Amino acid sequence: MDTVSEEILSMEKAALTRWGNGDPSGFLEISAPEVVYFNPYLERRLDGLEALTGDYEALRGTIFFDRFELLNPLVQFVEDMAVLTFNYVSYKDEEPDRWNCTEVYRRIQGVWKIIQSHWSYTQVFKNQVDQFDTSMLDRKG
Amino acid sequence: MDTVSEEILSMEKAALTRWGNGDPSGFLEISAPEVVYFNPYLERRLDGLEALTGDYEALRGTIFFDRFELLNPLVQFVEDMAVLTFNYVSYKDEEPDRWNCTEVYRRIQGVWKIIQSHWSYTQVFKNQVDQFDTSMLDRKG
Repeated sequence: MDTVSEEILSMEKAALTRWGNGDPSGFLEISAPEVVYFNPYLERRLDGLEALTGDYEALRGTIFFDRFELLNPLVQFVEDMAVLTFNYVSYKDEEPDRWNCTEVYRRIQGVWKIIQSHWSYTQVFKNQVDQFDTSMLDRKG
Repeated sequence: MDTVSEEILSMEKAALTRWGNGDPSGFLEISAPEVVYFNPYLERRLDGLEALTGDYEALRGTIFFDRFELLNPLVQFVEDMAVLTFNYVSYKDEEPDRWNCTEVYRRIQGVWKIIQSHWSYTQVFKNQVDQFDTSMLDRKG
């Protein structure tokens, strides 16, 4: 693997490790002032590091998982911009949580920073159906 | 607006106009061989123009909408790579369909091509709840 891909992947994994321990600062520290952000709960794209900080700080100490995997991560890049995409799965008590992720990094004064982050659920409707089935079984029990 | 942003936005809107008339070729013609793709129905990221073509051709002649809007579109770019993000809404019979979108374009031999496309539903769970409520009302009717 080339050094750009290695560096980007290493940064992302380090931030995710902290994220899974209830600490959003790993991502905030590597995000640029111009960062924009999508997740499945927002009414609109979030614009800027201040808005992202507000969103992430509300989650501090609330998100914990045991382990995670980046499935088939890919980095596409030019001199000063890199796109990292992967399917993501985290496990808590062996329960998987599956996401699609696109992170865009920009090299600013020699340092890679996230300028765009897009997280969405993998096969969200399938997951919803699974959850629905489980809850129906619970009711029958 | 700068010329890069104008060009990217113009390409995206032209492809979406064709998309809303059942024609996926607008997007296929501006996608690079290396394109990767996420949507909410896929088990994994789709890799490459051949895979994307297979997915899109299956939809030919099936998707129609009356009009669409790109809400607050933003283009972040360096010399040969550009990230377009927007909230998207299309209308069919005045029924809105809301998405988050991240398109990454790369300039290859002077021509901008999509190398990464990530579409996800805006507030998917809210939409699901709305749909659920509607179906409950129908049953009461």
